Amino acid sequence: MNNQLDILALSGSLRAGSFNAKILSAARALVPVGAAIEIYDYRDVPLYDGDVEETAYPEAAARLKDRIRRADALLIATPEYNFSVPGVLKNALDWASRPYGDSALAGKPLAIIGGGGGQGTNRAQDHLRQIAHGLDMHLVRRPEIFVANVWTKFDAAGELADPAARQLVSELLDNLAGLALRLRAAADLKTAA
Amino acid sequence: MNNQLDILALSGSLRAGSFNAKILSAARALVPVGAAIEIYDYRDVPLYDGDVEETAYPEAAARLKDRIRRADALLIATPEYNFSVPGVLKNALDWASRPYGDSALAGKPLAIIGGGGGQGTNRAQDHLRQIAHGLDMHLVRRPEIFVANVWTKFDAAGELADPAARQLVSELLDNLAGLALRLRAAADLKTAA
Amino acid sequence: MNNQLDILALSGSLRAGSFNAKILSAARALVPVGAAIEIYDYRDVPLYDGDVEETAYPEAAARLKDRIRRADALLIATPEYNFSVPGVLKNALDWASRPYGDSALAGKPLAIIGGGGGQGTNRAQDHLRQIAHGLDMHLVRRPEIFVANVWTKFDAAGELADPAARQLVSELLDNLAGLALRLRAAADLKTAA
Amino acid sequence: MNNQLDILALSGSLRAGSFNAKILSAARALVPVGAAIEIYDYRDVPLYDGDVEETAYPEAAARLKDRIRRADALLIATPEYNFSVPGVLKNALDWASRPYGDSALAGKPLAIIGGGGGQGTNRAQDHLRQIAHGLDMHLVRRPEIFVANVWTKFDAAGELADPAARQLVSELLDNLAGLALRLRAAADLKTAA
Repeated sequence: MNNQLDILALSGSLRAGSFNAKILSAARALVPVGAAIEIYDYRDVPLYDGDVEETAYPEAAARLKDRIRRADALLIATPEYNFSVPGVLKNALDWASRPYGDSALAGKPLAIIGGGGGQGTNRAQDHLRQIAHGLDMHLVRRPEIFVANVWTKFDAAGELADPAARQLVSELLDNLAGLALRLRAAADLKTAA
Repeated sequence: MNNQLDILALSGSLRAGSFNAKILSAARALVPVGAAIEIYDYRDVPLYDGDVEETAYPEAAARLKDRIRRADALLIATPEYNFSVPGVLKNALDWASRPYGDSALAGKPLAIIGGGGGQGTNRAQDHLRQIAHGLDMHLVRRPEIFVANVWTKFDAAGELADPAARQLVSELLDNLAGLALRLRAAADLKTAA
Repeated sequence: MNNQLDILALSGSLRAGSFNAKILSAARALVPVGAAIEIYDYRDVPLYDGDVEETAYPEAAARLKDRIRRADALLIATPEYNFSVPGVLKNALDWASRPYGDSALAGKPLAIIGGGGGQGTNRAQDHLRQIAHGLDMHLVRRPEIFVANVWTKFDAAGELADPAARQLVSELLDNLAGLALRLRAAADLKTAA
Repeated sequence: MNNQLDILALSGSLRAGSFNAKILSAARALVPVGAAIEIYDYRDVPLYDGDVEETAYPEAAARLKDRIRRADALLIATPEYNFSVPGVLKNALDWASRPYGDSALAGKPLAIIGGGGGQGTNRAQDHLRQIAHGLDMHLVRRPEIFVANVWTKFDAAGELADPAARQLVSELLDNLAGLALRLRAAADLKTAA
């Protein structure tokens, strides 16, 4: 049995140079011992359509669901588009929650990060939290991470150079890992009984 | 000059049998004299990606933007997916707002309808309203239309048979047309000056 | 040592005949063995004022804080006023969170119920959930309870007569008690270590 | 007939040294010609209680309602308490909207300002906007004003010294006055007809 804690990370932006993707890259080095982060590229997941869901569930969506299911926890880094989460991110979550009664997200631990302009993706995170509640996910509440003026927080090598941001990401990952371990222990107890 | 009021309608669901699309169909017969509704199918609009935006703005997104730009007003009927708007709808709006400084949505009048389960898409409409605020759109405030248990509101021929819902849609369209006419008059005044 | 689980209940409405207060009364009989609910009347808590906080912290607010602090969990039943929580409820929570660094609410488990009109206080609960996140409270996620058309759910004797609502309240209280016990166990472990 | 445009201002904080109150004071000098701002102190408005509403509508609440009714527009400056609007502000709005069918707020133009910490009251403004929608108020959409780190924006004399903030407040007041004048003109037309 593999006890490594498996954290799956999604970026709300598909841009190659996305600062949110870079925050996730930085997070890989800040994760606690015994845990590892894999960044998942979901750009092949098509637009959600209930008819397609019933007649030909897309392979890319099935792969995303399966990968989420095997993960112990999710980590989402999201920009803010028009005062909310990017449609592409919501679309991926919509697929992962379907079909009805077979969501890969329910009960899964989730931590949220955001990097953006002056408000640091505050409004996107509010919406994502409400969506996570709708999805019945376990949300890590603290620390909240709003990386404002995110383009100033990376050095020339593309590394997250802001000490405060690095510290917050570390704390968030510790809390996410702690929550995932408690949930795994509770599930093991149930299995053993 | 064509004085017909041009209302462009988007459904948040891509399903062929979508009740929200059916509400939009019903709306076409409830529109005030001098106005017409066209339902626009945006399923060819790809996932938003800032890199693609810069290097090869998708034709489907450009067509959507252009069609919105020519419209006097927007009408959106949306289901609720995971306590928010469908990702596909948000994705279309994200494209229509881009690139920065060239949004087709800013200043455009918008009315919102929703059909769904017990809560009638209440939470999706809250999010859509916040998104519309982010997009700087003119929102029609009343009546609010939450078509709860929407599958019970259509007859065997697929017509919106609920008198209360029909009445509310009529009122909403009157208010949307009124708002669009006031904005057109104000713009004409400016042009004349 | 008293192992009875102590649940403190607040109604968002101060009306004597409040249906939300009646739901809390009904909840007292639906609570799991080993737990008890006390409904707290906070109408003597004055309007929050940062100057008053510093110069003469009101006794009524101090009593509320102290009572919350001794509770293992909170249960809030709220109506919806103008698409949000009642100002009076928010005001009580504002006091209970002050002064800065001395909140009685941080880390406390919370379950939310609402009774109202057609939307069943949906929007008030969304806001309360965001407020609870701001307060760093542990939220019970399921079941969600929106008692729509709440005036039809009580019998002549004033009892909550709706079987579905009773069942949901029972489940919510079970989940709240379970969460509170897990948190108490975790705290005991820390104290023992 | 008095053509002076009458803007009534409410601060979400009751503190004497409130920065939001100070922003309102500054706004008085930034108002366009032909308009004037009066800051209203609503600290005598008691906690809302539906029973009290029916049996002895409080004089302080009636005064607030009457003053709002005479105003052409509202201006609210709000801090953020626990990720939402202060309970005291919401409580005043709750009273002003009651009894049912006799709201002083419906149809009234509203502009929102906020001064606070790093997020500049972003979340409070989101909630206030939703509340304003519930109250059927006319919201000025732009510019949005989030005065972050508000304590750094005033000089030793207590004047709003930040040029960007002053400029934004001026623009917002211009837009609020413009909206109020258009609504007054529309109402005059109706009266004349």
